Amino acid sequence: MTTKSSKLIHFGPYEVTDQVFYNTPLCYALVNIKPILPGHVLVIPYRAVRRLTDLTTEEVSDLFTTVQRVQKMLAKNYFKNDGAEGKLEDGSFNIAIQDGPESGQTVAHVHCHIIPRTKDSSDEGDGIYDRLQGEEGNVGGGLWDLKRPTPIGKFPKIEDADRKPRSADDMNKEAAFLREQMELVE
Amino acid sequence: MTTKSSKLIHFGPYEVTDQVFYNTPLCYALVNIKPILPGHVLVIPYRAVRRLTDLTTEEVSDLFTTVQRVQKMLAKNYFKNDGAEGKLEDGSFNIAIQDGPESGQTVAHVHCHIIPRTKDSSDEGDGIYDRLQGEEGNVGGGLWDLKRPTPIGKFPKIEDADRKPRSADDMNKEAAFLREQMELVE
Repeated sequence: MTTKSSKLIHFGPYEVTDQVFYNTPLCYALVNIKPILPGHVLVIPYRAVRRLTDLTTEEVSDLFTTVQRVQKMLAKNYFKNDGAEGKLEDGSFNIAIQDGPESGQTVAHVHCHIIPRTKDSSDEGDGIYDRLQGEEGNVGGGLWDLKRPTPIGKFPKIEDADRKPRSADDMNKEAAFLREQMELVE
Repeated sequence: MTTKSSKLIHFGPYEVTDQVFYNTPLCYALVNIKPILPGHVLVIPYRAVRRLTDLTTEEVSDLFTTVQRVQKMLAKNYFKNDGAEGKLEDGSFNIAIQDGPESGQTVAHVHCHIIPRTKDSSDEGDGIYDRLQGEEGNVGGGLWDLKRPTPIGKFPKIEDADRKPRSADDMNKEAAFLREQMELVE
């Protein structure tokens, strides 16, 4: 389903209905307020459990086949080569789950990060991971500014903390665009 | 199946049969030569494809239900609390896939990192990710010293490059221990 959901969708305590761009009966895909790189999105099971090990086989299977489907859409849109539609082999992805508070999880609701990487972004090297663990990876504090959680671990870099979160309008527009793009994935 | 495989198992170009501690018909779990933290292991589909998107639904489902099963075993053994058997809620995990060369993948064969995290290790913060992207995360160059690949991205830290890889004997002993432990997972 790629139309906007008629029921409210929650990510942990946050209502994110308008920022969802794809869903299945068991999970949904969500844009980010402070993407680490363009196209950085999350895939999340509807059932608000904390840990990967809390998911049923059906939920796990659905979550990661959805990750694959979202990757195909992101490749077309974010791996563009000389203006042509991107192919999967034109770039890479970091796929990451922070499974529990000691791993940097700030929202107690399983979520899988998908971060597109290209030759340009590969120069950032482990900077991506720094940022995932730091303020930009704080999907609770970073995405919605209520009940702001604090990530465990190294203090976020000043330059990251200074990045401006996007407006709801920006996020909703991106969600609408990605919703359309998901319809084009085989 | 938790007995040692009778057929040779390969991870990319590397023969890893003796370091495998668990397998299903579609995937296997492998110890690391230079674990980032104690209990850092990999789950790998038998079929040697490069990208997550290359996996069938059956393979994706099997890979991540195996990740869950391995997590339960790791929690019991690495989240120990005052000597008692660890529970899942006593610690966390970083789950990460480097899906393609620009994301730090050095072996062109899908592999999922499982890295146990505890309150002690959470002080390392994003150091874990630095190390995953650096020399310790170089599962090709790091695990087996032939056809050594070079990770794209930031130059590995000297202190990481200096870490000694474990001996085959050490790895095989750990694999044997984890094989037994996998039989105890419900």
